[in-house]
Amino acid sequence: MKSANRYLLWLNWPEGAFRLNARSLAVFKGLVRGEVKVVRSERAFLRALPEATHAVVWEFRREWFARAPRLRVLATPGAGRELLPKDGELPPGVVRVNGTFHGAIMGETVVACIFAHARGLYAAAGFQRRGVLWPRVEMTPFCSLVAGTKAVILGYGHVGRAIGAKLEALGVEVKGIARRNIGELGESLREADWLVMALPGDTGTDDLIDAAMLRRMKRTAVIVNVGRGNAIDEKALASVLKSRRIAGAYLDVFKREPLDSSSPLAENLPGLVRLPHASAFAPEYLPMFFREMAAAGWLK
Amino acid sequence: MKSANRYLLWLNWPEGAFRLNARSLAVFKGLVRGEVKVVRSERAFLRALPEATHAVVWEFRREWFARAPRLRVLATPGAGRELLPKDGELPPGVVRVNGTFHGAIMGETVVACIFAHARGLYAAAGFQRRGVLWPRVEMTPFCSLVAGTKAVILGYGHVGRAIGAKLEALGVEVKGIARRNIGELGESLREADWLVMALPGDTGTDDLIDAAMLRRMKRTAVIVNVGRGNAIDEKALASVLKSRRIAGAYLDVFKREPLDSSSPLAENLPGLVRLPHASAFAPEYLPMFFREMAAAGWLK
Repeated sequence: MKSANRYLLWLNWPEGAFRLNARSLAVFKGLVRGEVKVVRSERAFLRALPEATHAVVWEFRREWFARAPRLRVLATPGAGRELLPKDGELPPGVVRVNGTFHGAIMGETVVACIFAHARGLYAAAGFQRRGVLWPRVEMTPFCSLVAGTKAVILGYGHVGRAIGAKLEALGVEVKGIARRNIGELGESLREADWLVMALPGDTGTDDLIDAAMLRRMKRTAVIVNVGRGNAIDEKALASVLKSRRIAGAYLDVFKREPLDSSSPLAENLPGLVRLPHASAFAPEYLPMFFREMAAAGWLK
Repeated sequence: MKSANRYLLWLNWPEGAFRLNARSLAVFKGLVRGEVKVVRSERAFLRALPEATHAVVWEFRREWFARAPRLRVLATPGAGRELLPKDGELPPGVVRVNGTFHGAIMGETVVACIFAHARGLYAAAGFQRRGVLWPRVEMTPFCSLVAGTKAVILGYGHVGRAIGAKLEALGVEVKGIARRNIGELGESLREADWLVMALPGDTGTDDLIDAAMLRRMKRTAVIVNVGRGNAIDEKALASVLKSRRIAGAYLDVFKREPLDSSSPLAENLPGLVRLPHASAFAPEYLPMFFREMAAAGWLK
Protein backbone atom coordinates (compact mmCIF):
# COMPACT_ATOMS: atom_id res chain seq x y z
CA MET A 1 0.00 0.00 0.00
CA LYS A 2 1.26 3.46 -0.93
CA SER A 3 2.04 5.52 2.16
CA ALA A 4 0.29 8.86 2.67
CA ASN A 5 1.23 11.90 0.64
CA ARG A 6 3.06 14.78 2.30
CA TYR A 7 3.00 18.06 0.47
CA LEU A 8 5.73 20.56 1.22
CA LEU A 9 5.13 24.15 0.05
CA TRP A 10 7.91 26.73 0.07
CA LEU A 11 6.61 29.70 -1.88
CA ASN A 12 7.52 33.04 -0.42
CA TRP A 13 9.03 35.24 -3.08
CA PRO A 14 8.49 38.85 -2.04
CA GLU A 15 6.12 39.69 -4.91
CA GLY A 16 2.62 39.21 -3.55
CA ALA A 17 1.42 37.37 -6.64
CA PHE A 18 4.04 34.67 -6.08
CA ARG A 19 3.74 34.25 -2.33
CA LEU A 20 1.48 31.68 -0.71
CA ASN A 21 -1.29 33.32 1.30
CA ALA A 22 -4.34 32.11 3.21
CA ARG A 23 -6.50 32.11 0.11
CA SER A 24 -4.14 30.21 -2.18
CA LEU A 25 -3.28 27.75 0.61
CA ALA A 26 -6.99 27.04 1.07
CA VAL A 27 -7.25 26.32 -2.66
CA PHE A 28 -4.32 23.89 -2.40
CA LYS A 29 -5.75 22.10 0.62
CA GLY A 30 -9.07 21.71 -1.18
CA LEU A 31 -7.29 19.82 -3.96
CA VAL A 32 -5.29 17.24 -2.00
CA ARG A 33 -5.58 14.51 0.61
CA GLY A 34 -2.68 14.18 2.99
CA GLU A 35 -0.62 16.46 5.17
CA VAL A 36 0.27 19.91 3.84
CA LYS A 37 3.31 21.59 5.34
CA VAL A 38 4.17 25.22 4.61
CA VAL A 39 7.69 26.52 5.22
CA ARG A 40 9.16 29.99 4.80
CA SER A 41 12.92 29.41 4.85
CA GLU A 42 15.48 27.21 3.19
CA ARG A 43 16.40 25.77 6.57
CA ALA A 44 12.84 24.76 7.40
CA PHE A 45 12.44 23.41 3.88
CA LEU A 46 15.48 21.17 4.18
CA ARG A 47 14.36 19.97 7.58
CA ALA A 48 10.99 18.87 6.21
CA LEU A 49 12.25 17.56 2.87
CA PRO A 50 13.00 13.95 3.98
CA GLU A 51 9.28 13.27 4.55
CA ALA A 52 7.96 15.08 1.45
CA THR A 53 6.34 13.20 -1.43
CA HIS A 54 5.54 16.45 -3.30
CA ALA A 55 7.48 19.70 -3.13
CA VAL A 56 6.24 22.99 -4.63
CA VAL A 57 9.00 25.58 -4.68
CA TRP A 58 10.56 28.56 -6.42
CA GLU A 59 14.02 26.93 -6.38
CA PHE A 60 15.57 23.55 -5.77
CA ARG A 61 19.25 22.67 -5.86
CA ARG A 62 20.40 19.40 -7.34
CA GLU A 63 22.26 18.38 -4.18
CA TRP A 64 19.04 18.49 -2.18
CA PHE A 65 17.78 15.30 -3.85
CA ALA A 66 20.05 13.32 -1.47
CA ARG A 67 17.83 14.50 1.37
CA ALA A 68 14.58 13.68 -0.41
CA PRO A 69 14.20 9.89 -0.49
CA ARG A 70 10.37 9.94 -0.73
CA LEU A 71 10.07 12.75 -3.28
CA ARG A 72 7.98 11.92 -6.36
CA VAL A 73 6.89 15.33 -7.71
CA LEU A 74 9.06 18.44 -7.77
CA ALA A 75 7.01 21.36 -9.01
CA THR A 76 7.43 25.08 -9.55
CA PRO A 77 4.74 27.55 -10.60
CA GLY A 78 7.35 29.33 -12.70
CA ALA A 79 7.62 28.93 -16.46
CA GLY A 80 11.42 29.27 -16.37
CA ARG A 81 13.28 26.01 -16.89
CA GLU A 82 16.19 27.38 -14.88
CA LEU A 83 14.23 27.25 -11.62
CA LEU A 84 14.56 23.48 -11.13
CA PRO A 85 17.28 20.91 -11.87
CA LYS A 86 17.27 19.71 -15.48
CA ASP A 87 15.50 16.51 -16.53
CA GLY A 88 18.82 14.65 -16.76
CA GLU A 89 19.62 15.57 -13.17
CA LEU A 90 16.49 14.05 -11.64
CA PRO A 91 16.76 10.85 -9.58
CA PRO A 92 14.66 7.92 -10.85
CA GLY A 93 11.04 8.21 -9.82
CA VAL A 94 11.02 12.00 -9.54
CA VAL A 95 9.12 14.11 -12.07
CA ARG A 96 9.56 17.83 -12.49
CA VAL A 97 6.61 20.06 -13.27
CA ASN A 98 6.61 23.63 -14.56
CA GLY A 99 3.41 25.65 -14.72
CA THR A 100 1.95 26.21 -18.18
CA PHE A 101 -0.89 28.54 -17.17
CA HIS A 102 1.07 31.80 -17.50
CA GLY A 103 -0.11 32.61 -20.99
CA ALA A 104 -3.66 33.12 -19.73
CA ILE A 105 -2.43 35.99 -17.56
CA MET A 106 0.33 37.28 -19.83
CA GLY A 107 -2.09 37.32 -22.76
CA GLU A 108 -4.17 39.83 -20.79
CA THR A 109 -1.11 42.03 -20.33
CA VAL A 110 -0.45 41.93 -24.07
CA VAL A 111 -4.09 42.80 -24.80
CA ALA A 112 -3.78 45.69 -22.34
CA CYS A 113 -0.65 47.07 -24.03
CA ILE A 114 -1.92 46.74 -27.59
CA PHE A 115 -5.37 48.19 -26.92
CA ALA A 116 -4.16 50.98 -24.63
CA HIS A 117 -1.75 51.99 -27.40
CA ALA A 118 -4.21 51.74 -30.29
CA ARG A 119 -7.08 53.46 -28.50
CA GLY A 120 -4.95 56.40 -27.47
CA LEU A 121 -5.00 55.90 -23.68
CA TYR A 122 -1.38 56.98 -23.24
CA ALA A 123 -1.94 60.09 -25.33
CA ALA A 124 -5.12 60.87 -23.37
CA ALA A 125 -3.27 60.44 -20.06
CA GLY A 126 -0.67 62.94 -21.24
CA PHE A 127 -3.33 65.53 -22.12
CA GLN A 128 -5.08 64.93 -18.80
CA ARG A 129 -1.86 65.37 -16.83
CA ARG A 130 -1.20 68.65 -18.61
CA GLY A 131 -4.72 69.87 -17.77
CA VAL A 132 -6.00 69.81 -21.37
CA LEU A 133 -9.71 69.22 -20.80
CA TRP A 134 -10.99 68.53 -24.30
CA PRO A 135 -8.25 67.40 -26.71
CA ARG A 136 -10.76 66.04 -29.19
CA VAL A 137 -9.11 67.08 -32.44
CA GLU A 138 -5.64 66.42 -30.97
CA MET A 139 -6.52 62.80 -30.11
CA THR A 140 -7.38 61.79 -33.68
CA PRO A 141 -3.89 60.68 -34.78
CA PHE A 142 -3.51 58.49 -31.68
CA CYS A 143 -6.62 56.38 -32.21
CA SER A 144 -6.84 53.33 -34.43
CA LEU A 145 -8.71 50.07 -34.76
CA VAL A 146 -7.04 46.86 -33.60
CA ALA A 147 -9.34 44.47 -35.48
CA GLY A 148 -7.79 43.73 -38.86
CA THR A 149 -4.22 44.49 -37.78
CA LYS A 150 -1.42 41.93 -37.93
CA ALA A 151 0.56 40.52 -35.03
CA VAL A 152 3.70 38.43 -35.25
CA ILE A 153 4.14 36.37 -32.09
CA LEU A 154 7.75 35.32 -31.68
CA GLY A 155 7.96 32.25 -29.47
CA TYR A 156 4.94 30.03 -29.93
CA GLY A 157 4.83 27.66 -26.98
CA HIS A 158 2.23 27.67 -24.19
CA VAL A 159 2.59 31.39 -23.66
CA GLY A 160 2.74 32.52 -27.28
CA ARG A 161 -0.27 30.44 -28.26
CA ALA A 162 -2.36 31.69 -25.33
CA ILE A 163 -1.56 35.26 -26.35
CA GLY A 164 -2.41 34.45 -29.96
CA ALA A 165 -5.79 32.99 -29.03
CA LYS A 166 -6.82 36.19 -27.25
CA LEU A 167 -5.68 38.43 -30.09
CA GLU A 168 -7.45 36.26 -32.68
CA ALA A 169 -10.66 36.46 -30.65
CA LEU A 170 -10.35 40.25 -31.01
CA GLY A 171 -9.97 40.14 -34.78
CA VAL A 172 -6.19 40.37 -35.03
CA GLU A 173 -4.47 38.35 -37.75
CA VAL A 174 -1.86 36.31 -35.89
CA LYS A 175 1.28 34.72 -37.24
CA GLY A 176 3.03 32.60 -34.65
CA ILE A 177 6.72 31.94 -35.16
CA ALA A 178 8.15 29.10 -33.12
CA ARG A 179 11.79 29.09 -32.03
CA ARG A 180 12.69 26.64 -34.81
CA ASN A 181 11.16 28.81 -37.56
CA ILE A 182 12.92 32.01 -36.63
CA GLY A 183 14.14 32.31 -40.22
CA GLU A 184 10.61 33.41 -41.20
CA LEU A 185 10.81 36.40 -38.91
CA GLY A 186 12.54 38.88 -41.20
CA GLU A 187 9.89 38.70 -43.90
CA SER A 188 6.92 38.70 -41.50
CA LEU A 189 8.23 41.74 -39.66
CA ARG A 190 7.66 44.01 -42.66
CA GLU A 191 3.91 43.44 -42.44
CA ALA A 192 3.53 43.38 -38.66
CA ASP A 193 1.65 46.03 -36.72
CA TRP A 194 2.59 44.29 -33.47
CA LEU A 195 5.69 42.25 -32.70
CA VAL A 196 4.83 40.27 -29.58
CA MET A 197 7.83 38.49 -28.06
CA ALA A 198 7.28 35.45 -25.84
CA LEU A 199 10.62 33.66 -26.18
CA PRO A 200 12.07 31.75 -23.23
CA GLY A 201 15.48 32.80 -21.88
CA ASP A 202 18.01 31.11 -24.11
CA THR A 203 21.35 32.40 -25.30
CA GLY A 204 20.53 31.26 -28.85
CA THR A 205 18.23 34.27 -29.24
CA ASP A 206 20.61 36.95 -27.88
CA ASP A 207 20.06 40.23 -29.73
CA LEU A 208 17.75 38.58 -32.25
CA ILE A 209 15.86 41.87 -32.61
CA ASP A 210 18.78 44.03 -33.67
CA ALA A 211 19.18 47.20 -35.72
CA ALA A 212 18.64 45.37 -39.02
CA MET A 213 15.44 43.68 -37.82
CA LEU A 214 14.14 46.95 -36.36
CA ARG A 215 14.72 48.67 -39.71
CA ARG A 216 12.30 46.23 -41.33
CA MET A 217 9.43 47.28 -39.10
CA LYS A 218 6.72 49.76 -40.03
CA ARG A 219 6.96 53.25 -38.55
CA THR A 220 3.63 52.64 -36.84
CA ALA A 221 4.68 49.25 -35.46
CA VAL A 222 4.94 48.44 -31.77
CA ILE A 223 6.97 45.82 -29.87
CA VAL A 224 5.53 44.05 -26.82
CA ASN A 225 8.12 41.89 -25.02
CA VAL A 226 6.85 39.60 -22.27
CA GLY A 227 9.44 36.88 -22.93
CA ARG A 228 13.03 37.52 -21.95
CA GLY A 229 15.17 40.61 -22.31
CA ASN A 230 18.17 38.96 -23.96
CA ALA A 231 16.40 38.78 -27.34
CA ILE A 232 16.49 42.55 -27.94
CA ASP A 233 19.55 44.67 -28.72
CA GLU A 234 18.62 47.35 -26.20
CA LYS A 235 20.92 50.01 -27.61
CA ALA A 236 19.47 49.56 -31.10
CA LEU A 237 15.92 49.68 -29.72
CA ALA A 238 16.63 52.85 -27.73
CA SER A 239 17.96 54.43 -30.90
CA VAL A 240 14.87 53.66 -33.05
CA LEU A 241 12.58 54.87 -30.28
CA LYS A 242 14.53 58.11 -29.92
CA SER A 243 14.26 58.78 -33.66
CA ARG A 244 10.59 57.62 -33.69
CA ARG A 245 11.50 55.04 -36.32
CA ILE A 246 8.92 52.73 -34.66
CA ALA A 247 5.90 53.85 -32.66
CA GLY A 248 6.40 52.11 -29.34
CA ALA A 249 7.90 49.41 -27.16
CA TYR A 250 6.08 47.87 -24.21
CA LEU A 251 8.75 46.00 -22.30
CA ASP A 252 8.19 43.76 -19.30
CA VAL A 253 11.69 42.21 -19.44
CA PHE A 254 15.22 43.50 -19.81
CA LYS A 255 18.72 42.21 -20.42
CA ARG A 256 19.65 42.94 -16.81
CA GLU A 257 17.03 42.61 -14.10
CA PRO A 258 16.43 44.47 -11.91
CA LEU A 259 16.72 47.23 -14.47
CA ASP A 260 19.26 49.84 -13.45
CA SER A 261 20.20 53.26 -14.70
CA SER A 262 23.03 51.91 -16.87
CA SER A 263 20.48 50.44 -19.32
CA PRO A 264 19.77 52.37 -22.54
CA LEU A 265 16.11 51.74 -21.70
CA ALA A 266 16.22 53.36 -18.25
CA GLU A 267 15.53 56.73 -19.88
CA ASN A 268 11.91 57.68 -20.62
CA LEU A 269 12.17 57.50 -24.41
CA PRO A 270 9.24 58.33 -26.76
CA GLY A 271 6.86 55.38 -26.94
CA LEU A 272 8.70 53.38 -24.26
CA VAL A 273 6.50 51.77 -21.62
CA ARG A 274 8.18 49.67 -18.94
CA LEU A 275 6.78 47.01 -16.65
CA PRO A 276 8.92 45.34 -13.95
CA HIS A 277 8.66 41.70 -15.16
CA ALA A 278 5.08 41.75 -13.97
CA SER A 279 3.15 40.47 -16.98
CA ALA A 280 1.97 37.38 -15.07
CA PHE A 281 1.16 39.10 -11.77
CA ALA A 282 -2.30 38.22 -10.44
CA PRO A 283 -3.77 37.04 -7.16
CA GLU A 284 -4.92 33.99 -9.14
CA TYR A 285 -1.36 33.00 -10.03
CA LEU A 286 -0.85 30.23 -7.46
CA PRO A 287 -4.46 29.00 -7.47
CA MET A 288 -4.22 28.63 -11.25
CA PHE A 289 -1.07 26.55 -10.88
CA PHE A 290 -2.53 24.36 -8.16
CA ARG A 291 -5.64 23.68 -10.24
CA GLU A 292 -3.47 22.91 -13.25
CA MET A 293 -1.43 20.40 -11.17
CA ALA A 294 -4.58 18.74 -9.91
CA ALA A 295 -6.11 18.52 -13.38
CA ALA A 296 -2.92 16.93 -14.74
CA GLY A 297 -2.79 14.37 -11.91
CA TRP A 298 0.40 15.71 -10.30
CA LEU A 299 -1.16 16.03 -6.86
CA LYS A 300 -2.07 12.34 -6.54
CA MET B 1 -36.51 53.49 -65.92
CA LYS B 2 -35.04 54.81 -62.66
CA SER B 3 -32.85 57.86 -63.24
CA ALA B 4 -29.19 57.75 -62.18
CA ASN B 5 -28.18 58.01 -58.56
CA ARG B 6 -26.46 61.16 -57.30
CA TYR B 7 -24.62 60.84 -54.02
CA LEU B 8 -24.01 64.00 -52.02
CA LEU B 9 -21.41 63.78 -49.23
CA TRP B 10 -21.02 66.54 -46.64
CA LEU B 11 -18.81 65.14 -43.93
CA ASN B 12 -16.30 67.61 -42.58
CA TRP B 13 -16.42 67.65 -38.82
CA PRO B 14 -13.05 68.83 -37.55
CA GLU B 15 -12.12 65.54 -35.87
CA GLY B 16 -10.07 63.60 -38.38
CA ALA B 17 -11.89 60.34 -37.76
CA PHE B 18 -15.17 61.93 -38.86
CA ARG B 19 -13.96 63.90 -41.86
CA LEU B 20 -14.04 62.55 -45.39
CA ASN B 21 -10.54 62.12 -46.81
CA ALA B 22 -9.06 60.70 -50.00
CA ARG B 23 -8.97 57.19 -48.61
CA SER B 24 -12.52 57.07 -47.29
CA LEU B 25 -13.83 58.77 -50.45
CA ALA B 26 -12.13 56.10 -52.56
CA VAL B 27 -13.88 53.44 -50.48
CA PHE B 28 -17.23 55.15 -51.08
CA LYS B 29 -16.67 55.46 -54.82
CA GLY B 30 -15.77 51.79 -54.99
CA LEU B 31 -19.17 50.90 -53.54
CA VAL B 32 -21.49 52.95 -55.79
CA ARG B 33 -22.45 53.61 -59.39
CA GLY B 34 -23.44 57.14 -60.20
CA GLU B 35 -22.11 60.61 -59.62
CA VAL B 36 -20.50 61.36 -56.24
CA LYS B 37 -20.39 64.98 -55.16
CA VAL B 38 -18.43 66.12 -52.13
CA VAL B 39 -19.22 69.46 -50.47
CA ARG B 40 -17.62 71.21 -47.53
CA SER B 41 -20.11 73.91 -46.54
CA GLU B 42 -23.80 74.23 -45.80
CA ARG B 43 -24.15 76.59 -48.72
CA ALA B 44 -22.62 74.16 -51.20
CA PHE B 45 -24.69 71.37 -49.71
CA LEU B 46 -27.96 73.25 -50.18
CA ARG B 47 -26.98 74.17 -53.72
CA ALA B 48 -26.42 70.52 -54.65
CA LEU B 49 -29.32 69.09 -52.65
CA PRO B 50 -32.04 69.37 -55.36
CA GLU B 51 -30.25 66.78 -57.53
CA ALA B 52 -29.28 64.37 -54.75
CA THR B 53 -30.81 60.91 -54.44
CA HIS B 54 -28.62 60.02 -51.44
CA ALA B 55 -27.19 62.42 -48.85
CA VAL B 56 -24.60 61.43 -46.24
CA VAL B 57 -24.22 64.14 -43.62
CA TRP B 58 -23.53 65.03 -40.00
CA GLU B 59 -26.63 67.19 -39.79
CA PHE B 60 -29.81 67.84 -41.70
CA ARG B 61 -32.57 70.29 -40.88
CA ARG B 62 -36.18 69.40 -41.39
CA GLU B 63 -36.86 72.45 -43.56
CA TRP B 64 -34.25 71.31 -46.08
CA PHE B 65 -36.53 68.50 -47.30
CA ALA B 66 -38.41 71.13 -49.35
CA ARG B 67 -35.26 71.54 -51.47
CA ALA B 68 -34.70 67.81 -51.88
CA PRO B 69 -37.33 66.46 -54.27
CA ARG B 70 -35.23 63.51 -55.47
CA LEU B 71 -33.88 62.44 -52.07
CA ARG B 72 -34.45 58.78 -51.19
CA VAL B 73 -31.79 58.03 -48.53
CA LEU B 74 -30.69 60.43 -45.79
CA ALA B 75 -27.81 58.89 -43.87
CA THR B 76 -25.48 59.85 -41.06
CA PRO B 77 -22.53 57.85 -39.79
CA GLY B 78 -23.37 58.96 -36.23
CA ALA B 79 -25.20 56.77 -33.77
CA GLY B 80 -27.04 59.75 -32.26
CA ARG B 81 -30.70 59.97 -33.23
CA GLU B 82 -30.60 63.75 -32.73
CA LEU B 83 -28.41 64.24 -35.84
CA LEU B 84 -31.24 63.80 -38.35
CA PRO B 85 -34.96 64.69 -38.43
CA LYS B 86 -37.13 62.15 -36.61
CA ASP B 87 -38.93 59.36 -38.48
CA GLY B 88 -42.25 61.21 -38.26
CA GLU B 89 -40.70 64.25 -39.94
CA LEU B 90 -39.55 62.43 -43.08
CA PRO B 91 -41.33 63.06 -46.36
CA PRO B 92 -42.82 59.98 -48.03
CA GLY B 93 -40.20 57.96 -49.89
CA VAL B 94 -37.25 59.11 -47.79
CA VAL B 95 -35.52 56.69 -45.38
CA ARG B 96 -33.15 57.75 -42.65
CA VAL B 97 -30.12 55.66 -41.81
CA ASN B 98 -27.92 55.80 -38.72
CA GLY B 99 -24.68 53.84 -38.51
CA THR B 100 -24.68 50.77 -36.25
CA PHE B 101 -21.00 49.88 -36.57
CA HIS B 102 -19.76 52.00 -33.64
CA GLY B 103 -19.75 49.19 -31.11
CA ALA B 104 -16.94 47.44 -32.97
CA ILE B 105 -14.69 50.43 -32.31
CA MET B 106 -16.09 51.46 -28.92
CA GLY B 107 -15.76 47.86 -27.70
CA GLU B 108 -12.03 48.16 -28.32
CA THR B 109 -11.91 51.30 -26.19
CA VAL B 110 -13.71 49.49 -23.38
CA VAL B 111 -11.30 46.54 -23.66
CA ALA B 112 -8.41 49.01 -23.51
CA CYS B 113 -9.73 50.70 -20.35
CA ILE B 114 -10.56 47.48 -18.51
CA PHE B 115 -7.32 45.69 -19.35
CA ALA B 116 -5.07 48.70 -18.81
CA HIS B 117 -6.66 49.08 -15.38
CA ALA B 118 -6.53 45.41 -14.39
CA ARG B 119 -3.00 44.80 -15.64
CA GLY B 120 -1.60 47.79 -13.80
CA LEU B 121 -0.59 49.94 -16.80
CA TYR B 122 -1.63 53.20 -15.13
CA ALA B 123 0.26 52.32 -11.96
CA ALA B 124 3.31 51.34 -14.02
CA ALA B 125 3.17 54.62 -15.95
CA GLY B 126 3.19 56.49 -12.64
CA PHE B 127 6.27 54.65 -11.42
CA GLN B 128 8.00 55.20 -14.76
CA ARG B 129 7.27 58.92 -14.70
CA ARG B 130 8.70 59.19 -11.21
CA GLY B 131 11.86 57.37 -12.33
CA VAL B 132 11.24 54.21 -10.29
CA LEU B 133 13.05 51.61 -12.41
CA TRP B 134 11.97 48.35 -10.83
CA PRO B 135 8.71 48.65 -8.82
CA ARG B 136 8.20 44.91 -8.81
CA VAL B 137 6.88 44.44 -5.29
CA GLU B 138 5.00 47.75 -5.47
CA MET B 139 3.10 46.66 -8.61
CA THR B 140 1.52 43.59 -7.02
CA PRO B 141 -1.65 45.25 -5.65
CA PHE B 142 -2.37 46.86 -9.04
CA CYS B 143 -2.42 43.63 -11.09
CA SER B 144 -5.39 41.33 -11.45
CA LEU B 145 -6.90 38.89 -13.89
CA VAL B 146 -9.81 40.01 -16.06
CA ALA B 147 -11.01 36.53 -17.03
CA GLY B 148 -13.63 35.42 -14.54
CA THR B 149 -14.66 38.95 -13.53
CA LYS B 150 -18.19 40.29 -13.97
CA ALA B 151 -19.29 43.18 -16.15
CA VAL B 152 -22.68 44.86 -16.14
CA ILE B 153 -23.32 46.59 -19.45
CA LEU B 154 -25.97 49.25 -19.08
CA GLY B 155 -27.56 49.97 -22.44
CA TYR B 156 -27.72 46.86 -24.56
CA GLY B 157 -28.37 47.93 -28.11
CA HIS B 158 -25.91 47.71 -31.01
CA VAL B 159 -23.14 49.27 -29.00
CA GLY B 160 -23.67 47.46 -25.70
CA ARG B 161 -23.92 44.07 -27.38
CA ALA B 162 -20.76 44.62 -29.43
CA ILE B 163 -18.90 45.53 -26.25
CA GLY B 164 -20.33 42.48 -24.50
CA ALA B 165 -19.22 40.14 -27.28
CA LYS B 166 -15.61 41.27 -26.95
CA LEU B 167 -15.60 40.97 -23.17
CA GLU B 168 -17.18 37.52 -23.32
CA ALA B 169 -14.51 36.40 -25.79
CA LEU B 170 -11.98 37.38 -23.12
CA GLY B 171 -13.63 35.33 -20.38
CA VAL B 172 -15.66 38.08 -18.71
CA GLU B 173 -19.12 37.18 -17.40
CA VAL B 174 -21.41 39.75 -19.00
CA LYS B 175 -24.83 40.87 -17.87
CA GLY B 176 -26.45 43.20 -20.37
CA ILE B 177 -29.18 45.48 -19.05
CA ALA B 178 -31.36 47.07 -21.71
CA ARG B 179 -33.02 50.44 -21.17
CA ARG B 180 -36.37 48.77 -20.39
CA ASN B 181 -34.87 46.53 -17.67
CA ILE B 182 -33.11 49.24 -15.73
CA GLY B 183 -34.87 48.04 -12.56
CA GLU B 184 -32.43 45.09 -12.49
CA LEU B 185 -29.46 47.42 -12.21
CA GLY B 186 -29.41 47.95 -8.44
CA GLU B 187 -29.03 44.27 -7.61
CA SER B 188 -26.52 43.52 -10.39
CA LEU B 189 -24.30 46.42 -9.36
CA ARG B 190 -23.37 44.76 -6.06
CA GLU B 191 -21.64 41.94 -7.94
CA ALA B 192 -20.10 43.94 -10.77
CA ASP B 193 -16.36 44.39 -11.21
CA TRP B 194 -17.03 46.63 -14.22
CA LEU B 195 -19.99 48.89 -14.89
CA VAL B 196 -19.88 49.64 -18.59
CA MET B 197 -22.31 52.34 -19.66
CA ALA B 198 -23.49 52.51 -23.27
CA LEU B 199 -26.80 54.34 -22.93
CA PRO B 200 -27.99 56.71 -25.64
CA GLY B 201 -28.60 60.36 -24.72
CA ASP B 202 -32.07 60.46 -23.26
CA THR B 203 -33.41 62.57 -20.41
CA GLY B 204 -35.06 59.48 -18.90
CA THR B 205 -31.68 58.33 -17.62
CA ASP B 206 -30.51 61.63 -16.07
CA ASP B 207 -28.41 60.95 -12.97
CA LEU B 208 -29.29 57.26 -13.05
CA ILE B 209 -25.90 56.48 -11.47
CA ASP B 210 -26.29 58.57 -8.35
CA ALA B 211 -24.86 58.44 -4.83
CA ALA B 212 -27.14 55.55 -3.81
CA MET B 213 -26.18 53.45 -6.86
CA LEU B 214 -22.48 54.21 -6.36
CA ARG B 215 -22.72 53.05 -2.75
CA ARG B 216 -23.81 49.61 -3.97
CA MET B 217 -20.62 49.10 -5.94
CA LYS B 218 -17.59 47.13 -4.75
CA ARG B 219 -14.59 49.12 -3.59
CA THR B 220 -12.57 47.51 -6.38
CA ALA B 221 -15.19 48.28 -9.04
CA VAL B 222 -14.61 50.51 -12.03
CA ILE B 223 -17.01 52.49 -14.24
CA VAL B 224 -16.43 52.83 -17.98
CA ASN B 225 -18.84 55.29 -19.63
CA VAL B 226 -18.85 55.44 -23.42
CA GLY B 227 -22.57 56.27 -23.69
CA ARG B 228 -23.73 59.73 -22.69
CA GLY B 229 -22.73 61.90 -19.75
CA ASN B 230 -26.22 62.73 -18.50
CA ALA B 231 -26.60 59.30 -16.88
CA ILE B 232 -24.03 59.95 -14.14
CA ASP B 233 -24.44 62.33 -11.18
CA GLU B 234 -21.00 63.87 -11.65
CA LYS B 235 -20.78 65.41 -8.19
CA ALA B 236 -21.58 62.08 -6.55
CA LEU B 237 -19.02 60.31 -8.73
CA ALA B 238 -16.32 62.87 -7.94
CA SER B 239 -17.01 62.34 -4.27
CA VAL B 240 -16.66 58.52 -4.33
CA LEU B 241 -13.48 58.79 -6.39
CA LYS B 242 -12.02 61.31 -3.95
CA SER B 243 -12.70 59.01 -1.01
CA ARG B 244 -11.58 55.95 -3.03
CA ARG B 245 -14.94 54.35 -2.42
CA ILE B 246 -14.64 52.84 -5.93
CA ALA B 247 -11.41 52.08 -7.77
CA GLY B 248 -11.78 54.03 -10.97
CA ALA B 249 -13.84 55.78 -13.63
CA TYR B 250 -12.92 55.81 -17.30
CA LEU B 251 -15.12 58.50 -18.82
CA ASP B 252 -15.42 59.34 -22.49
CA VAL B 253 -18.54 61.48 -22.06
CA PHE B 254 -19.69 64.24 -19.74
CA LYS B 255 -22.82 66.15 -18.82
CA ARG B 256 -21.47 69.23 -20.57
CA GLU B 257 -19.30 68.85 -23.64
CA PRO B 258 -16.78 70.19 -24.30
CA LEU B 259 -15.77 69.55 -20.69
CA ASP B 260 -14.88 72.77 -18.90
CA SER B 261 -13.28 73.61 -15.59
CA SER B 262 -16.64 74.05 -13.85
CA SER B 263 -17.22 70.27 -13.95
CA PRO B 264 -16.54 68.28 -10.76
CA LEU B 265 -14.68 65.87 -13.05
CA ALA B 266 -12.29 68.47 -14.46
CA GLU B 267 -9.97 67.85 -11.51
CA ASN B 268 -7.53 64.92 -11.72
CA LEU B 269 -9.17 62.75 -9.06
CA PRO B 270 -7.78 59.36 -7.99
CA GLY B 271 -8.72 56.69 -10.51
CA LEU B 272 -10.27 59.17 -12.95
CA VAL B 273 -9.30 58.73 -16.59
CA ARG B 274 -10.84 61.09 -19.15
CA LEU B 275 -11.24 60.74 -22.90
CA PRO B 276 -12.70 63.56 -25.03
CA HIS B 277 -15.71 61.70 -26.50
CA ALA B 278 -13.25 59.74 -28.61
CA SER B 279 -14.22 56.12 -27.98
CA ALA B 280 -15.20 55.59 -31.63
CA PHE B 281 -12.26 57.45 -33.19
CA ALA B 282 -10.52 55.44 -35.92
CA PRO B 283 -9.42 56.05 -39.50
CA GLU B 284 -11.77 53.17 -40.37
CA TYR B 285 -14.82 55.04 -39.05
CA LEU B 286 -16.23 56.30 -42.37
CA PRO B 287 -15.15 53.27 -44.43
CA MET B 288 -16.94 51.02 -41.91
CA PHE B 289 -20.12 53.07 -42.30
CA PHE B 290 -19.96 53.09 -46.10
CA ARG B 291 -19.49 49.32 -46.16
CA GLU B 292 -22.37 48.88 -43.73
CA MET B 293 -24.61 51.03 -45.99
CA ALA B 294 -23.64 49.01 -49.03
CA ALA B 295 -24.22 45.68 -47.28
CA ALA B 296 -27.67 46.84 -46.14
CA GLY B 297 -28.63 47.97 -49.65
CA TRP B 298 -28.82 51.70 -48.84
CA LEU B 299 -26.46 52.73 -51.61
CA LYS B 300 -28.58 51.24 -54.41
